[in-house]
Amino acid sequence: MPRILGIDPGSTITGYAVIEGDASLSARVIDCIRLPRTDFPTRLGLIFSGLSDVIAAHQPDEMAIEDVFVSRNAASALKLGQARGAAICAAAARGLAVSEYTATQVKQAIVGRGHADKVQIQHMIGMLLGVRGPLQADAADAAAVAVCHAHHARTAGRMRVAPTDTGRRA
Amino acid sequence: MPRILGIDPGSTITGYAVIEGDASLSARVIDCIRLPRTDFPTRLGLIFSGLSDVIAAHQPDEMAIEDVFVSRNAASALKLGQARGAAICAAAARGLAVSEYTATQVKQAIVGRGHADKVQIQHMIGMLLGVRGPLQADAADAAAVAVCHAHHARTAGRMRVAPTDTGRRA
Repeated sequence: MPRILGIDPGSTITGYAVIEGDASLSARVIDCIRLPRTDFPTRLGLIFSGLSDVIAAHQPDEMAIEDVFVSRNAASALKLGQARGAAICAAAARGLAVSEYTATQVKQAIVGRGHADKVQIQHMIGMLLGVRGPLQADAADAAAVAVCHAHHARTAGRMRVAPTDTGRRA
Repeated sequence: MPRILGIDPGSTITGYAVIEGDASLSARVIDCIRLPRTDFPTRLGLIFSGLSDVIAAHQPDEMAIEDVFVSRNAASALKLGQARGAAICAAAARGLAVSEYTATQVKQAIVGRGHADKVQIQHMIGMLLGVRGPLQADAADAAAVAVCHAHHARTAGRMRVAPTDTGRRA
């Protein structure tokens, strides 16, 4: 099973997690980058350099990120888009394959159905990865998309069929 | 006068230009990256690597990019945001300072007033930088924001005051 980097990008907080394992998954790291209240290009640079450091330290093989279907307004979509672009570039610059999953796919993988609140996700991720104590919400979401990717990769390997995720290489 | 990289990011076409000079400006390169109709993470990776190659080849000192005030829908804002994030990261990864200018500031710098159509910008950029033949529109827009930055930097140097641009370092 490859070592997987999950990312939940945001211009205020960017969550990340690196998980590994086969029969049982465990987390090498689950944490977040808190961006200072500074100008936007500086924040994007910090997301890029922060995640580059995480990749250098934990050497993941693949990256997973939630696919976004925007329902909010255009201004917040533009902010989120830039943070997401910075996160994906950090992976692309290191040659990591990037897979995208919908929010429904992630929730399905973690709690077994397409609807779940943040508290439920945090609880399940703590249980699944054997993490004690409370998890920061964005860090837990990052771990959730990594677990989702691990489940899809495992199923794809067992069934020898194309995974249902988009499995796209950046 | 520093050598300036101007970028007009987009997920279909990303324009770029590197300009230099003091009394009269000239272009080292004005061109664009045409992205293939492939998945989005791959496109972001190509914007990042393409601009990284431009920076390595032409060694600009600073980068200028248009600040976006979105009027379009959230889905297109998300796409543009990601392309913009990838472009800014390419500069940030090389330690270039990033300055942002509004569309009005760019037009004011090129044609002397805040309103101008694309054809007018292309024409003026061709004249200002001594480029013969037609310019691709996004490449011309990239050169325009670079010229705008050169004008602001020059004025700031002459007046010994803070420039009116945000002059932010990424």
